[in-house]
This record gives sequence, C-alpha cells and structure tokens, in this order.
Amino acid sequence: MNRPLIVLLTDFGLRDHYVGTLKGVILSICPEARIIDLSHGIEPQNVAQAALLLETSYAVFPKGSIFVCVVDPGVGTKRKALCVKTSNYYFIGPDNGILSLALNHEKRLAIRSIENRRFFLKSIPSSTFHGRDIFSPTAAHLARKNIFNQLGPKVSTIHSIALPKVKKRGNRLEGEILYFDHFGNAITNIHERDGSVDLWKKANIFVRDITLGKLRRTYGEGPKTLCAVLNSSSQLEIAVPHGNAKTEASLEIGDEVGVVSNEKRS
Amino acid sequence: MNRPLIVLLTDFGLRDHYVGTLKGVILSICPEARIIDLSHGIEPQNVAQAALLLETSYAVFPKGSIFVCVVDPGVGTKRKALCVKTSNYYFIGPDNGILSLALNHEKRLAIRSIENRRFFLKSIPSSTFHGRDIFSPTAAHLARKNIFNQLGPKVSTIHSIALPKVKKRGNRLEGEILYFDHFGNAITNIHERDGSVDLWKKANIFVRDITLGKLRRTYGEGPKTLCAVLNSSSQLEIAVPHGNAKTEASLEIGDEVGVVSNEKRS
Amino acid sequence: MNRPLIVLLTDFGLRDHYVGTLKGVILSICPEARIIDLSHGIEPQNVAQAALLLETSYAVFPKGSIFVCVVDPGVGTKRKALCVKTSNYYFIGPDNGILSLALNHEKRLAIRSIENRRFFLKSIPSSTFHGRDIFSPTAAHLARKNIFNQLGPKVSTIHSIALPKVKKRGNRLEGEILYFDHFGNAITNIHERDGSVDLWKKANIFVRDITLGKLRRTYGEGPKTLCAVLNSSSQLEIAVPHGNAKTEASLEIGDEVGVVSNEKRS
Repeated sequence: MNRPLIVLLTDFGLRDHYVGTLKGVILSICPEARIIDLSHGIEPQNVAQAALLLETSYAVFPKGSIFVCVVDPGVGTKRKALCVKTSNYYFIGPDNGILSLALNHEKRLAIRSIENRRFFLKSIPSSTFHGRDIFSPTAAHLARKNIFNQLGPKVSTIHSIALPKVKKRGNRLEGEILYFDHFGNAITNIHERDGSVDLWKKANIFVRDITLGKLRRTYGEGPKTLCAVLNSSSQLEIAVPHGNAKTEASLEIGDEVGVVSNEKRS
Repeated sequence: MNRPLIVLLTDFGLRDHYVGTLKGVILSICPEARIIDLSHGIEPQNVAQAALLLETSYAVFPKGSIFVCVVDPGVGTKRKALCVKTSNYYFIGPDNGILSLALNHEKRLAIRSIENRRFFLKSIPSSTFHGRDIFSPTAAHLARKNIFNQLGPKVSTIHSIALPKVKKRGNRLEGEILYFDHFGNAITNIHERDGSVDLWKKANIFVRDITLGKLRRTYGEGPKTLCAVLNSSSQLEIAVPHGNAKTEASLEIGDEVGVVSNEKRS
Repeated sequence: MNRPLIVLLTDFGLRDHYVGTLKGVILSICPEARIIDLSHGIEPQNVAQAALLLETSYAVFPKGSIFVCVVDPGVGTKRKALCVKTSNYYFIGPDNGILSLALNHEKRLAIRSIENRRFFLKSIPSSTFHGRDIFSPTAAHLARKNIFNQLGPKVSTIHSIALPKVKKRGNRLEGEILYFDHFGNAITNIHERDGSVDLWKKANIFVRDITLGKLRRTYGEGPKTLCAVLNSSSQLEIAVPHGNAKTEASLEIGDEVGVVSNEKRS
C-alpha cells in the first residue's frame, strides 16, 4: 500500500518554525505519512493567490492525496474549518474560498465542518495557529484512517471566490494581470479556452498600450522582447525570454491585457 | 518500526547546495532516514534566534527524533561538537548555546563530545563545513544504530545562552521585542506564564510609547490596528491583523514592551 | 531494497507551484520515489551557476540517485533533452551544459536523447514547462524500472560549458569571483589543486587591490576582517568572519583574485 500523501500550501514562509511545526505534528500522529510542500510562498493573507495556485497544480498529485491549505486571515474567528471529499482527493482548509477554485473542477462527494476535538492537537486549540492545532492534525488522522464522517457536521455550501472575469467583446478578449511568478512572468486571467483556435492563431496581443504581436509558442524563439505565450497551464502569460517582464516593462497586477483579432485596438 | 527522523535547523538558506548536501550525506549513510526541515532561514550566525526557534517547536516532533542544529560561527575553532541525549530526543550541534533553551525543558540523560572520526564523513573534516563533515554524518549513524556511547567523551556542562529577562515591577511586566516573523509579527520575551490570569485579563499593553489596549484573543477580531495577542506558543506578540506590524509601526528588535495593570504608565 | 532517490535542481524558486508540481508528477508515476531538493534557488536562467552547484555537491548522494536539473532558457526550442548514465548516477536535463561540469568527474556509460513520449506526462508536451512534462516524468519512470535504453536515440556528444580558467603566471595564480553564497562569501574559480602545498602555505591573497594576507584555516580565527580560506569544496573563498564579504567589501562577480608568492603584486 502506498503511504498517504499530505500536500501543504500556506503563506507561512520558510523562515520561522511554522512549516516545520506542521510536519512535526503530522508525523507524531501518522509516522508513515508522506509530506510534500506545494508552496509556502503565498503572499501573506492572499487567499485568492493560494486558490489559484491550488487550482493550477492540484491535479498532478496522486489520487487520495490530502491537501492542507492554510492562508487564514480569519483564524480564531467564526469562519468554519472545512474538509472536502471529492472523487479524487481530500481538501482541508478554512472556509474563506481558498479551496473553491480547485473544487470547481472536482466532483464533490461530501463536505464536513471540522469540529471534532478528538482529532485536534489538544482539546482547546489556540486562536492563532489552527494550521498546527486543527488542520494538520486532522489531515494526519485522515491519513491514518478513514475518519472523514467523524470530523463534524455536514456542510452544504462553502465560501467561493471568483477571479476577475474575462470580457468577450466581438472579436476581442479583455483581461488583466493576476500575479507575477518567480521569473517575473505575468500570469493573466485569460485562459486558452476563452478564445477559439483561430483567434489564438491570428490575434494580436496587448498589455496596457504595448503591442506584443502574435502569440509565441516558446520563450526561446524570437527576439528577447516582451511577448505573450500560452503557458503550461493554458493561461495567457506575458514574458521576456531570458529576462523579467515585471521589472523590464514595469508591469503591475491589474494591468489590462487584450487579445484582438482583425481590428485596430481602439 | 518507524523510520528514524532527522530534523534540520540551520542558517544555510536555500540558495546554495549546503542543505542538499547535508541530505545527501545523511541518505548515503542511512538510506531509510527521514529528513524534515525545521528551518534554514535563521539569520546568518544568529545562534540565539535558532535556540529560540528550537525551544518553540521541538516538542511537536515524535519521540526519538534527532535534531541537527547548525548555526556555527565558530566552526573549525576549539568549540565542542555536542550530542545530547534526553528522555525524548537527541540534539546535535555546536557547543555555542544553540541547544540550551530547548534543553531547559528536557530531562538530559547524557552528553557526549562528538570526536569519533569513525562517524565523520571523512577522517579529516574540513574546517569550514562541519554540518557536512561531522554533524549530519553523526546524526545518520545514530539513526542507523545506537552508537551514542561511542561518539566521544562524556561532557558535564555545556554553553548556555539566556534571552533578555522579563522584569516584574509591582503590577507591571517589562520586556522587549526579540524578533519578527515572516508576517511582520513582533515576538517578545514575555511569556503567558510571566503574568497571572488576572493580569492578562485586565492589563493594558504598550510597545515603546504606543498604547495597544487590552490583549486580543485572535488576529481577526477588532479593528486592523496594532494590537497584542498571546500567540500559539504563549508568547506575547504584537501584530497588525491582515497587515505587517514591523513595517507599519516601524518596530525594531529590542523595542520595550510593557504589560501594565491598573495604573497609568509612568 | 532502497527506494529510488530523485534529486531536484532548478531555478524555479519556491514561491510558485512549479516545484510542487514536479513532485506531484513524480509521485503519481512512482509513488515510492524519494525526492530531495538540492536547490531551487539558482538565479533565473543561470545555467553556469547550476552546473557549478551540481559539480560541487552531487558526489555526496547515494549511488543510483537520479538528478533532475532544470535551468532551461531554451525550453521548447530544438535543444535536446538528455539522460546521461554514469557508473554511479543518472543525470537528466536540457543539453545546455548544465550537466557538463559534474560529468567531467564521472565515467559516462551512455547518453540518450529523451524522445520517447511514452514516458512523458502527456503525449504532446507543453512548450514552456518540460520540467513537468518531460524531465520529471522520465526520472520517475526511470526510478520505477530500468527503461534507460528506451528513452530515445543514443547521443555521442553533449554541450559543455567552461568556467573562466585560472591563469598561472610564474609564482602567481589569477582568477575571479564566480558567485556569492547565502552568507555573502565570494566563491572563486581558484581550486586548491591549482596551487602547490607550498604556495598555499606562503602566498598572499588579493581581491581587486585589497590585500587579504595569508590563507586562514577557519572563519572563526583571527580578526573579523576580509580574509581568504580554502572552503569545504577546496575552492578559494573570500569571507568576513561573522559578516558578509559581498556587502561589506562591495565585491562583485568577476572581481579579480590573485594568489601571489614571494613577490610584490605588480
């Protein structure tokens, strides 16, 4: 039997003891658990960034993986702690929308509000570190044994977040920059499926008032200038090959991005 | 049988090969060892920060864990290399106080000076990277087999460090900011046990000449202004909910912190 | 039997989902694989830095380890994807020289161009993330089963990179600063083997026009001033004990370094 996999996604950073503490808690409860860091580099309290990162990457993990997602500005308040069971995975995290983008693609089987103190680190959890006291011990107990139905009462609806919507106007798509990755690439809210094959073949792409020309297939081809690609997650991405689009073009989150076919941009 | 757990705490950062090298050395000696990163983000050479982080978090790890703690400005000089056996754990590191705060809470069974070159990576270690040459291979050998008594001569006293003491004057506690975490929260040297339940209920809290008011229970309640909480490790912590106390209030390490009951602050 | 070890070296950083994604892909294919991070902190697109880091550290890993090295500015272009089998290890990465410095020390048994789509994540890989689509799934399949000969056609020569050469002129060595580590130590291209035992004993060392005096044995001895040591990888390194050579002496990559015996520096 494969060892249960617990995947961690937080805004804890790697400087303090927080991530190590989660792992110590998990291994104390379920010594055979396997722990993978998805990222701990989410911007502090940026729930939307975490939700997007999770949506982009969760599906590569093995079936049965347990995702523990803790970006939790409301820790200690009345927001629920959730465990969502889908046909492929378990997702654990606060009810603030962090799980919602990934869940859009999953078949939800059941949702529980995590309230059973038997699975907490101690019966009275702290009011500031539920990652340690509630989320990671619950994941570890779940990795040991199927205690999903004992976690707490059923929940029927959960908090959702929505990314800014792409506008489709005639022969153009209008979107915006959502975030920058480590390389300074600008990831937008425009997805390959938002346009037709024909549009992607012919369209000119713009960011703010900068013309990027046609879509490139790779970072490596063509001149080392600002350009647009459909990235490995089928998102429209603005990059400088061998460079940093964010700093070199002074791009910012929220900058308008357009995909325009057969017309001048007005 | 559970696989032996080796927990790493260093100031090596994650950019270079140093941490990966420790892991390669360990797995070459003890392939079944399990390695967990507690943190590699200690400020370079800041032994006290590492000692405090270890004290705050070691107890969540499973019994039998082997802690390898390398913040070692005196590497290659005459400072001893220690292995401390307690009733729960092994602690390995230089004799510069890095282990001392955690050991205040543990029952020490024996201490050895690590001198047996049989357990080194090579018989003549480098004078600049004992993490690779002495500490991690010793931990790996210890994870394989109980060779504690063969490590070297017994040691009776070790170097201790002390954090700045909290002063109790009448109905007030006086302390200071020790460090800032990844979120910009200021962790102080004042512990919950330094004050009575009554004091924590009623007291006003100050940092420098800024009044923070009463203790809050969570980050999430109340206005998003500078405030004080007892954090998940029972330390008095100064925070800005959803914000960064360090940058927003220009706090600094060493800033005075007061907990004052029933009186005006003089 | 020991579980197969896959060692990751990239410039992906730890903020995004990229590294977590590699691990999810690997564990989906080979659940029993063991994954170690060598570093993900290579400067974006700096192939030479990655090649040097790999050369410095690969040999501490257990025999049979599979190195997956992805610093890949040419992703999606015609550069080959390689798998190199040596008498000790497998090395996987783009054919841009990233593997070449380590391979200088290894006995190469065979090289394959990775082209067999059976071992890709999906039969049509993206043109921007071969780490996910080609390199890591190939490593995972190789960790499961010896499919080396099925990866693709044999390759006889691969792209090499060379670091700046040390010049030996009479009784002096001339080199330069290659990079700075996390501590601000300057690592140079001068290796212990470039000079005789006698030279290292007697020589004065210079960086730019700054005299560093004789080699020190450790960081901890002597005054806390700019000095030179032979580091744990036998490279000449310039450091400030308990300090940061880079910032304190405003050193830069490419700065000249000299090792001079019995003569005034001209």
